[in-house]
Amino acid sequence: MSRVVKLAVIPGDGIGPEVVAEAVKVLDAVTAGSGVEFEKTPFSLGAARYLETGDTLTDADLAAIGEHDAILLGAVGGVPGDPRLKDANIERGLLLKLRFELDHYVNLRPSKLYPGAAGPLADPGDIDFVVVREGTEGPYVGNGGSIRRGTPHEVANETSVNTAYGIERVVRYAFSLAGRRRKKLTLVHKTNVLVHAGGMWKRIVDAVASEHPEVDVDYLHVDAATIFLVTNPSRFDVIVTDNLFGDILTDLAGAVTGGIGLAASGNINPDGAFPSMFEPVHGSAPDIAGTQKADPTAAILSVALLLDHLGLTDEAARVTRAVEDDIAGRDATPRSTAQIGDAIVDRVQA
Amino acid sequence: MSRVVKLAVIPGDGIGPEVVAEAVKVLDAVTAGSGVEFEKTPFSLGAARYLETGDTLTDADLAAIGEHDAILLGAVGGVPGDPRLKDANIERGLLLKLRFELDHYVNLRPSKLYPGAAGPLADPGDIDFVVVREGTEGPYVGNGGSIRRGTPHEVANETSVNTAYGIERVVRYAFSLAGRRRKKLTLVHKTNVLVHAGGMWKRIVDAVASEHPEVDVDYLHVDAATIFLVTNPSRFDVIVTDNLFGDILTDLAGAVTGGIGLAASGNINPDGAFPSMFEPVHGSAPDIAGTQKADPTAAILSVALLLDHLGLTDEAARVTRAVEDDIAGRDATPRSTAQIGDAIVDRVQA
Ligand SMILES: CC(C)[C@H](C(=O)O)[C@@H](O)C(=O)O
Ligand SMILES: CC(C)[C@H](C(=O)O)[C@@H](O)C(=O)O
Repeated sequence: MSRVVKLAVIPGDGIGPEVVAEAVKVLDAVTAGSGVEFEKTPFSLGAARYLETGDTLTDADLAAIGEHDAILLGAVGGVPGDPRLKDANIERGLLLKLRFELDHYVNLRPSKLYPGAAGPLADPGDIDFVVVREGTEGPYVGNGGSIRRGTPHEVANETSVNTAYGIERVVRYAFSLAGRRRKKLTLVHKTNVLVHAGGMWKRIVDAVASEHPEVDVDYLHVDAATIFLVTNPSRFDVIVTDNLFGDILTDLAGAVTGGIGLAASGNINPDGAFPSMFEPVHGSAPDIAGTQKADPTAAILSVALLLDHLGLTDEAARVTRAVEDDIAGRDATPRSTAQIGDAIVDRVQA
Repeated sequence: MSRVVKLAVIPGDGIGPEVVAEAVKVLDAVTAGSGVEFEKTPFSLGAARYLETGDTLTDADLAAIGEHDAILLGAVGGVPGDPRLKDANIERGLLLKLRFELDHYVNLRPSKLYPGAAGPLADPGDIDFVVVREGTEGPYVGNGGSIRRGTPHEVANETSVNTAYGIERVVRYAFSLAGRRRKKLTLVHKTNVLVHAGGMWKRIVDAVASEHPEVDVDYLHVDAATIFLVTNPSRFDVIVTDNLFGDILTDLAGAVTGGIGLAASGNINPDGAFPSMFEPVHGSAPDIAGTQKADPTAAILSVALLLDHLGLTDEAARVTRAVEDDIAGRDATPRSTAQIGDAIVDRVQA
């Protein structure tokens, strides 16, 4: 008897379709003959769809996506400054809407410096940590507004909304992850300035910590955390942080581990009430779209996170190992998006 | 006839007094015989004062400080976790209160990789940019609160308040600075998520840009900006950004240019209605306080910014050159705080 996994595939804009094509190749290769069948439904969403139809994400889209077991997303977003997209906000209307509506409260972003990957640090040391970024609250909630827009008296507010409910669940996830790793958890916030939100994060981490005596806990202000990410990234194991700080730290972490072309992520609803969504951290890079210059590695590593999430841990490990071996063998010879994908498929099959 | 400058000196906590002692030595050396006399008034403020008296910054303190032409500050803040400071927030109650009450709307933070300074990047290139961080608005305003504190139903909000008035004045300052430098200005924000505040920043930068055709303008999301700070910091000349993003970017910038021990800053009220305040970016580092291990360079470079602000540009340049020469001559031999200060004094006098 074979298990069927219903996978929604959102290739998106720019380089999205190219990297997703390779990710799907790898997914097919690693699950061939495994008894697990991925039934894929493509969804045409993103700037291109918006330009055609004026829709960003309809209720019908959302309902249809919600019927799936998981989602694989490439990248969404049009050419910056495109006047036809002036009134669109693909990021808020599509990507963030999916994360919020599907209650992706864990935004999981591993950062690992693979042997052979070239980062900007002279002496990086071993880098292997995971950022657990809260995905459904904080400054991302969209509770902002302005008055007297466009006048010299304009005032624009943005409210970060934080709940004990929302923080506790992601903090618990982070502790349990740390317990399965090197047992070190770092809370990153800015408690000395954002005293109410930061204070609540701190209190909840302290409370959950008492249930996890095996996990070592420390705290860093977000500004100090960026310093350590470039001077001593080995000090981190699991970082738990809010939506905005997590956004910033994970781009920086991607850069120090060899570039955003390698950084994968999962938008996870651990309760299983909604499908989780896996996507590279990078954007749609419209400037190189269609040129086969994009590195599909981040999308392929997102497939490994997807497999892991589905409990297909052997398959996940095979993908990760294939990527690791591919990276270790890289030299200056340029390869197309498809060539990198094919090379990783070969290693998966070997 | 000699000019008298009334300088308020706030040594503060931890390593603050040690680094300020060296900064004052250098200030005295460079102004000796210049016809400018610095009349210094020490203010005992910080965690130590709070523990003694329970006061953080009284109205009388503020009024007295306000009578001065400028302020030199070391660092404030007690030992993290000190239970006696549980209810104090020295950062908000003292440092941020000074910035807000004295309308320090330009938080000026130059980042330069001096020859000889060892940063973490393998291939840093030339780094020489200035972050113009807004100092009186944004998520720092303290407009937050919580309900049901300590219960599972707690909600904590933090509101970022942004005004056209506040943004326009700092943006104008940044453009005029860029015009006197390499004529490149980068706005950093997160317009795709914080659409109201970000949108206003973007519109105001675009409007002021039209008055400065000589300045090249670009925009980066804050997450992308952190990537460029480690992969291509030479691309930056002047960065203008909000209070929180500026806090994060300048710590990272300090790290990539050889450490926070070299990073100086000015909290400036360009209108001259209030005294401007100059301080190293680093904190009070209570763990090494009193050991003469702190590097006073950031405090000394803050004196250069102070001199510049007062129009004493020759004296400022002499301090900067002395620091540059000192850094270029550094080797692994450890020097005490006072030895570094003395060496820079010698160079200033040479
Ligand atoms: C595109 C943008 C809204 C998004 C975010 O800020 O979360 C992106 O930067 C990311 O990190 O996935
Ligand atoms: C101490 C803290 C409130 C302060 C800030 O966040 O502005 C510090 O980090 C700085 O950058 O000067």
